[in-house]
Amino acid sequence: MPDRMREVSVTRRDGNAVEERTDAVATEDPLEIRINDVPLAVVMRTPGDDEDLVTGFLLTEGILIAPDEIAALEWAEDSRASVRFRDGVDVDATRFQRNLFVSSSCGVCGKASIEAVRLFARSTQDFTVRRGVVASLTERLRAHQPTFDATGGLHAAGLFDLEGEVLTAREDVGRHNAVDKAIGAAAKQHWPLPASLLVVSGRQSFEIVQKAAVVGIGGVVGVSAPSSLAVELAESQGMLLVGFSRAGAFNVYAGSERLAD
Amino acid sequence: MPDRMREVSVTRRDGNAVEERTDAVATEDPLEIRINDVPLAVVMRTPGDDEDLVTGFLLTEGILIAPDEIAALEWAEDSRASVRFRDGVDVDATRFQRNLFVSSSCGVCGKASIEAVRLFARSTQDFTVRRGVVASLTERLRAHQPTFDATGGLHAAGLFDLEGEVLTAREDVGRHNAVDKAIGAAAKQHWPLPASLLVVSGRQSFEIVQKAAVVGIGGVVGVSAPSSLAVELAESQGMLLVGFSRAGAFNVYAGSERLAD
Repeated sequence: MPDRMREVSVTRRDGNAVEERTDAVATEDPLEIRINDVPLAVVMRTPGDDEDLVTGFLLTEGILIAPDEIAALEWAEDSRASVRFRDGVDVDATRFQRNLFVSSSCGVCGKASIEAVRLFARSTQDFTVRRGVVASLTERLRAHQPTFDATGGLHAAGLFDLEGEVLTAREDVGRHNAVDKAIGAAAKQHWPLPASLLVVSGRQSFEIVQKAAVVGIGGVVGVSAPSSLAVELAESQGMLLVGFSRAGAFNVYAGSERLAD
Repeated sequence: MPDRMREVSVTRRDGNAVEERTDAVATEDPLEIRINDVPLAVVMRTPGDDEDLVTGFLLTEGILIAPDEIAALEWAEDSRASVRFRDGVDVDATRFQRNLFVSSSCGVCGKASIEAVRLFARSTQDFTVRRGVVASLTERLRAHQPTFDATGGLHAAGLFDLEGEVLTAREDVGRHNAVDKAIGAAAKQHWPLPASLLVVSGRQSFEIVQKAAVVGIGGVVGVSAPSSLAVELAESQGMLLVGFSRAGAFNVYAGSERLAD
């Protein structure tokens, strides 16, 4: 397994000062995912937790509906994962389609994208969460970003329970991969997932909220800004969507009824 | 055309203080790209400069080798771009394949990815650039990020000439889209592109450096960190790769021979 970081030679320039040194950068390498020998996708990812990545990817993209639908996961050279489904698992061919959630018979538009997610989303347990817990989550995620600290180049995602305790946290050079890894790791322990919040270091785009919705996670909290379509999706799903969560303050973009004192 | 920003209702919480207000978020909406009536890709993008996005996407993904191979670009409902190629344009069917640059007959690995890009990359003009110019570029890009200033949620990319003058700069909720828009806009003015540097607000991943290499841009400069595979690709292509460019200081990860005093 390649390391999550690699040492590279760097020339640091600051005004007239020049310094030659070595620096750690986040490793990025391709991983091909095959289903029953058919290539499904190639993701550029940071090696490590690859089984979590594959499991999470298949769940959050709606290709699997439960982790135990996987009968076997075989590896070739750390860069190709071949997934075999259990006998009797009925995988709808349309679930293999790329861009599933943005192509629909009623056209390509934001509303159609939201509608497509609604058809696939797991229902979420009703819950409330104390706002003091919400305010603490991005800081708690920071404690699980060792590779970011070394490279400055990794995204992180974590699942936290309603008391703010971490369930799983993972890093990756890709925002989506970090989410898939954290969800894949949690899904192997508990399925369906317990009431929990997805916490991300990066922007909350439509695809990030979509991934949470598809596996029944009722809230997404991030350090950064959401997009318009992410806000609309969270509203339509009754999800909590929190952005700009820094130093104890945060913005609630959807689902404020889920906050308790 | 939808706006690049949308107003949403936000509840801001900071300790016990609660404020209801409206906030601008970056618009995100799907765009389907069709080639001769065949759906090629759906990208989630910020509306605006969509023609630049389509042109840049087709060039940087190696599907087109020159912008004038496009005979017509027709729009349906702002969300579907149908591209018709000129008669006689020979589009290799393999150029349509997704994940072109990471699947190869010699397997899936970083080395194969780099080799695949090498086969598609345009040769780059030999050039040097003064380090004072390089040091100024991320700050210059900041002057072209009006929507980021309002939303905090957009990436930016710009093409700059070797004197540090902006050729094109574009914003998008997606890092890749911002790059495609900036390159597409420049390609309509000059093709092949003049000696120039791609400047990005986000991380320099393999795919960002790949896009630059495919259209013959000899250098990538970013505010943030590169990945290992981005460094390896830049080295193999003789490209300048600069990261952590902030407040006049920067790190050179590849191509330091391209820097002049």
